[in-house]
Amino acid sequence: MFDYIHHVAYVVSDMDDALRIFRDIFELELSDRRMIEGETSVEMAAFRCGPTIIEILRPINHPALTQFLEEHGPGLHHVGFAMKDLPRRVEELKEKGVFVNGPFVAGTGWRIAYFDFEKSDLDLLKSCYHGDHLAEAESREESKA
Amino acid sequence: MFDYIHHVAYVVSDMDDALRIFRDIFELELSDRRMIEGETSVEMAAFRCGPTIIEILRPINHPALTQFLEEHGPGLHHVGFAMKDLPRRVEELKEKGVFVNGPFVAGTGWRIAYFDFEKSDLDLLKSCYHGDHLAEAESREESKA
Repeated sequence: MFDYIHHVAYVVSDMDDALRIFRDIFELELSDRRMIEGETSVEMAAFRCGPTIIEILRPINHPALTQFLEEHGPGLHHVGFAMKDLPRRVEELKEKGVFVNGPFVAGTGWRIAYFDFEKSDLDLLKSCYHGDHLAEAESREESKA
Repeated sequence: MFDYIHHVAYVVSDMDDALRIFRDIFELELSDRRMIEGETSVEMAAFRCGPTIIEILRPINHPALTQFLEEHGPGLHHVGFAMKDLPRRVEELKEKGVFVNGPFVAGTGWRIAYFDFEKSDLDLLKSCYHGDHLAEAESREESKA
């Protein structure tokens, strides 16, 4: 049902430090970097690592991510699981007692769906900040772009 | 330098719950499950998710993982980054001021190397329990097996 790990997300207070580590030391391709503004605001950078994106999030105005930084310091935050045909899969999951909010298009441009941890028995994937979630698998064309 | 995400590891207190989530609900292939005994002991299960392994660790006698469970509850623990020719890459990393312990073969059978966080400026990848680390990329033959 999952095709691959869509992304692993790190929350940081210093974007330059993340660029130093993932781009300069580990030589990963910086595939995206921008400000995402909405109800909450973050600076986002994305690095390619095989089919997976390493997503870096620096909170600008984002209480939950700021709380994470205050309590944990910068670090690993959540995993996004890639599924083809996310809307259909979401319906299949419902039949298994797993409920989600979405799918919707996130500020990153990715189509994602959040687990509804209140209604689903998935505590392993939950954190008090922001749980793991689903993401639409990239089409082959997009993956190659 | 990284080829893909080798594994994402979750620490659990209840292996049956992890099997229910990743095997039964998310329909991932259980590719390995066993007890790993040594200086520390864990029950390990591994699920395939594209090129990445979802590694589940249940501490039997493992103070650091037990502490993680006590303080956080079950959840996401660390990421392993896959590199081809790990010994050569480890030498290249040294020239960039990144030091590791290893490579060595872990109880899982994977060849891995731990970052030396005391000597390397990689706080983003560190946690107080067990940081992210490196792992030898599978050869094409092994990947297909």
